Formats: sequence, C-alpha cells, structure tokens
Amino acid sequence: MNHNQLFRNIQKKRSFLCIGLDTDLSKIPSHLLSYQDPVFEFNKRIIDATQDLCVAYKPNVAFYEALGFEGWVSLEKTVQHIPEGVFKLADAKRGDIGNTTRMYARGFFDQMNFDAITLSPYMGSDSVLPYFQYADKWVVLLALTSNEGASDFQFLKTDSGQLFEEVLKISKDWGTVDNTMFVVGATKAGLMKKVRKIVPDNFLLVPGVGAQGGSLTEVAKHGLNDKCGLLVNSSRGIIYASQGEDFAEAARAQALIMQQQMEVILDEAGL
Amino acid sequence: MNHNQLFRNIQKKRSFLCIGLDTDLSKIPSHLLSYQDPVFEFNKRIIDATQDLCVAYKPNVAFYEALGFEGWVSLEKTVQHIPEGVFKLADAKRGDIGNTTRMYARGFFDQMNFDAITLSPYMGSDSVLPYFQYADKWVVLLALTSNEGASDFQFLKTDSGQLFEEVLKISKDWGTVDNTMFVVGATKAGLMKKVRKIVPDNFLLVPGVGAQGGSLTEVAKHGLNDKCGLLVNSSRGIIYASQGEDFAEAARAQALIMQQQMEVILDEAGL
Repeated sequence: MNHNQLFRNIQKKRSFLCIGLDTDLSKIPSHLLSYQDPVFEFNKRIIDATQDLCVAYKPNVAFYEALGFEGWVSLEKTVQHIPEGVFKLADAKRGDIGNTTRMYARGFFDQMNFDAITLSPYMGSDSVLPYFQYADKWVVLLALTSNEGASDFQFLKTDSGQLFEEVLKISKDWGTVDNTMFVVGATKAGLMKKVRKIVPDNFLLVPGVGAQGGSLTEVAKHGLNDKCGLLVNSSRGIIYASQGEDFAEAARAQALIMQQQMEVILDEAGL
Repeated sequence: MNHNQLFRNIQKKRSFLCIGLDTDLSKIPSHLLSYQDPVFEFNKRIIDATQDLCVAYKPNVAFYEALGFEGWVSLEKTVQHIPEGVFKLADAKRGDIGNTTRMYARGFFDQMNFDAITLSPYMGSDSVLPYFQYADKWVVLLALTSNEGASDFQFLKTDSGQLFEEVLKISKDWGTVDNTMFVVGATKAGLMKKVRKIVPDNFLLVPGVGAQGGSLTEVAKHGLNDKCGLLVNSSRGIIYASQGEDFAEAARAQALIMQQQMEVILDEAGL
C-alpha cells in the first residue's frame, strides 16, 4: 500500500486508528479456549467486528512467538484474514545486518504479505535498506518509544540534539515518505513538535494511547499533517474491553469511540 | 547455564567458539532438499560434526522466520538437538516494552529452552529487565556491532563518550556478569580496549570473524579476561565451508582450525 492509498483510506473511513493484536491466551475469553486455534478465533472476531473503524492492524509478533510454531500459524492465518485495503503492520522491532535483514523481509513481506515492519535503528542503515527493495512496503523505525526505559538512551544529548532527533535526522534520508514511518509514543506527545520539525511529511505510528496513558488530542494537535500523517494505535484498550462472550462487541464499542474522536479531528483539520 | 559452567566448558574444550546456524535453504547442499525438513537435517549434521569443538550454537532466528511456521518447527527441533552443556543462544535482536518482553522470554526461554537471547538496547531498561527473572539465562545486548551501518549511531558523541560506551555504562548495572553479555564486533577489535575498561568482567559475544573480516588474534589480544570472557562466533565460514555432500566434514575442518587457534590463545593466557 502506498502513501496516497493509506491517506485515502483514512479519509474514507474517517479514522486513523490502528488496532494492536497483542493476543494473549491468558487474557482472551475462556469460551474460546476449546477451539483448535483460540488465538486466531479471537483475532478473527476482533477483526470482523472492527475492520470498518480502523485503517490498520498491528499484531505484536512477540505474542505469537511466545506460543512457538503454533503461534506462528495463528499469525499467518490472522494476516490472511485482514481484509484487502487494511494496512498490515508486523510489530517485530527487528534490526540486523543486511544478510539477515533480507531474511526478515522475505518472512514478513513475501511469506506473510505484511505492508510494514517495525525496526530498531541501533544497527544503522544496512539493517534497514534491504527492505526498500520491496515496492509499496514500509519500515517503521523506533524513534521515541512510549515506555519508561525510553529515557535511558533516546534522550542522551549528542552534538546536535538528543539521540531520538539524530535517529530521525539520519534515517529520514535512507528512504522516502513513501516507505518510512517512525514510532513516536503518545506518552511523549509534548515532543511531537520537535519530531515534526525534522520529519514533517512522514507517517508516525503512535502507540501509548489508552493503557499507557497518552492523549489522542495532544497527539493530533502536534502530530497531524496535511496527509494526516498519523496512525494511532490502541491494543489492550480495545481488544480486552471485555473478557466475556461479548468481547467483540465491546471491542467494537471502544474502537467506535476512538473513530468518532478521530472523525472530529479530521473534520476540524479539513482532511 | 551460569558464568562458571560456561568458563569450565571453555577450559575443558579448549575453545571459545560459537557456531552461528544461519541456515539458508538456497545455500545448503542440494541433496538435503529432498528431506521433509532440510533445514533441520543440515543443522543436525553440522551439530553432530562440530559439537566437541565449540561451546555454543547461535541460530539466527531471522533465517527460520523467513520460512514461516515450518522454519519455527526447524528451529525448535534444532535447539532440542543441541547437546546438554552446550550454550544455546537465540540471535533474535529483540527489544520491546516490558509487557511484550515477557512474551519473548516465554518463547525463547520456556518454550525453546535457549540459554540466551540477543537484544537491541534502544528501548532501555524495561525492555531488558524481565529476562532477569529467569535463573541462569542471559541477555546479550548489542553494543558495538560488526556491520558498516554501526557507524550511523553507535559512534555518535554524547556527553561522556560515544553512544556504544553509554550503552555499556548504563546497561551493565541492569543485571550482573552472570546474566549479561555484550555484542562487540570483531571488525571493531581496535575498540575492544575501550569496551574492556567499562565492562572488564562480562562475557562478550564477538561476531564478524571470518566472512566479515575480523581477526581472532586482535579480538583475543584486547578482549580476553581471566574467565576468558569471549564467545567468538563464526557462521558462514564454518557451515558453508563446502556445499557438497562433504559439508559436515568441511565444517568440522574449519571449526577445528578455529578451535586450535583458540587453544593456543587459552594456553598462552594460562587459562
């Protein structure tokens, strides 16, 4: 999916919501556990109940790997079940030398047909460039993460700013706005202005709204650009809205609240 | 496996060799492709032919993920086939928030019984600490990697040195020498002195000898400590020494060359 298609989907659906599929066997409703593949059954119902309200799904790969190869099967089935035209983002936070990166690209882009993969920037350009061989596929680089530990390194002062700013400055030129997004946590919305000075046109993937305490209004205030430029993710706040048999309806209700807030934001911005 | 056990294995085997199982279907001997699980058949023969010459195996997880769930099955079987007492290192280069990290730990430590996992430090302490809940398991943090792109960020000047030094200084206190190793590329052996000033006692995992051009002598000169403190990895140089039916014997021959060099180094150091 390219930049324009993503923006058009946002305009059409009046939403820039990404739903995180952090599916955990210990948190899904117990009546699903009797199925042969409970993780997929859960995801399928969540996707069916919310796909008109969001523009992207983001399975966090860790939750699938934790289950061994069976988790990998659930992940593949989940990706296949996401409807055409919805952005499919593998939250994998990989990063390795070129030789290895080509393997990851094969796994996530060829084998599973994800549109994008999250990457850690620490190993530099050759851990990112091989992904750009794929047309209409994206890398999503960690810049300013939503967790507490983010402050250990990302705020270190360098010659020309802080580490997260260096990451943005250096890596924005590896690719283009058509294949590079950045992760900027909603809990760091106050720094979104600094981010937008460096990367005014790139899409930002924004986790941390909801369970982690970030504010959608703050994120939009400083992060929105003329092609929206935001994918705001919510995982736990939506998918675990209820642990009863009504979990899919409850997830839809939460997603709808976010979609409606996003519609107001898009309307006010004339998008 | 704890620090002392690892050191004792090194002393007993006269080797600090780690063999990287970067197993690629397009590079393994063609006669193996008719087996139901060629990747495992390849690894099994490599392990059987080399296990007395090395103290660790390091499957690079990317190569298995590239094959989808079948690759995951091959990985699980490979880990099970590594003999008791040989260190099992998942080269996964993960890094995510605590919630997710616990999932990775479950996958790699509980599900697959790896001894260690490689991690990217970018997201900070809460992306690492959950692994320390597991006794005798290790994290291996990227500090100074062997690839060219390493220079994009790892050498950035900060208030008190360069980024890789900050990573060492800050993260060495998250755990102990019994559960924390650092990746320092053999291609950066000239900087090993700086590394050893900050982390004199930690084990270092050293990739980049062989195909990437690093020198074992240089690495040992600056990196060896009184418990050896080095795991030197070779992947392609050993496992793809021959692409014929004699691949396992050829791999053994290459591993033997390295083991003999290491024996001299250990002898000279009185270890």
